[in-house]
Amino acid sequence: MFSQQERALLDLPAFAALATLMPDGAPQLTVMWYRRDGYSLRMIAPADTRKARNLEHDPRVAVIVEEPGNSYHFVEIRGTVEIVHDDDAARAELERIAERYIGDRAKDYAAGLSADPRLLLVVHPEKTVYHPGGG
Amino acid sequence: MFSQQERALLDLPAFAALATLMPDGAPQLTVMWYRRDGYSLRMIAPADTRKARNLEHDPRVAVIVEEPGNSYHFVEIRGTVEIVHDDDAARAELERIAERYIGDRAKDYAAGLSADPRLLLVVHPEKTVYHPGGG
Repeated sequence: MFSQQERALLDLPAFAALATLMPDGAPQLTVMWYRRDGYSLRMIAPADTRKARNLEHDPRVAVIVEEPGNSYHFVEIRGTVEIVHDDDAARAELERIAERYIGDRAKDYAAGLSADPRLLLVVHPEKTVYHPGGG
Repeated sequence: MFSQQERALLDLPAFAALATLMPDGAPQLTVMWYRRDGYSLRMIAPADTRKARNLEHDPRVAVIVEEPGNSYHFVEIRGTVEIVHDDDAARAELERIAERYIGDRAKDYAAGLSADPRLLLVVHPEKTVYHPGGG
């Protein structure tokens, strides 16, 4: 379970830095939209991207979400990603995720995407560290 | 060399997300102050921290720096960290780094630190990807 403070932070329209592992084991980072769903984070990636190929090879990830405008307040999550190979489900989820960031424009955004298949990524935390900041 | 756009972004008082590798190879993330110095980024870490122990074990890192207030504009860097075991050099560098973020308070901040030894971390990029955002 996320704590109440963690949920409050994660439910802001903040961005996630997602660390995956390259085939040689080196770390790789991208900035992601996401949506919290219970004790998981949901993200979308085109299947033909570096991060998606990395996750197919090794599902271990780390995620940091910082409070917009206050990077001293952040939560770090280590865990694994479950990959859902369902383009329809991924697009439906992407529209929900996009609403967090662009509101009413999410439907048009989702409708305008390329046909490249999308993966639904479900981050399952194993360890969470909360940094309240303000120190 | 960083491009002019990359330098302009990196020289903002932005925060870096630093990905290191746990002993089992899983990724780990922290938020860091840094300072660009030519084609490197300088950071400081207490020697007795997870990230420092990770780097002693495996120097491969990834770094993301986002524009404050505009996470669509970011640069990702993959490379390796050179660890300088010189507490005096690390503290001198930390004061310079801190000036980027807290200005005149940097001297008091540096003077008030614990006696725990600090490491100077020099990130040497091998690959840099610039995301101009605004799409």
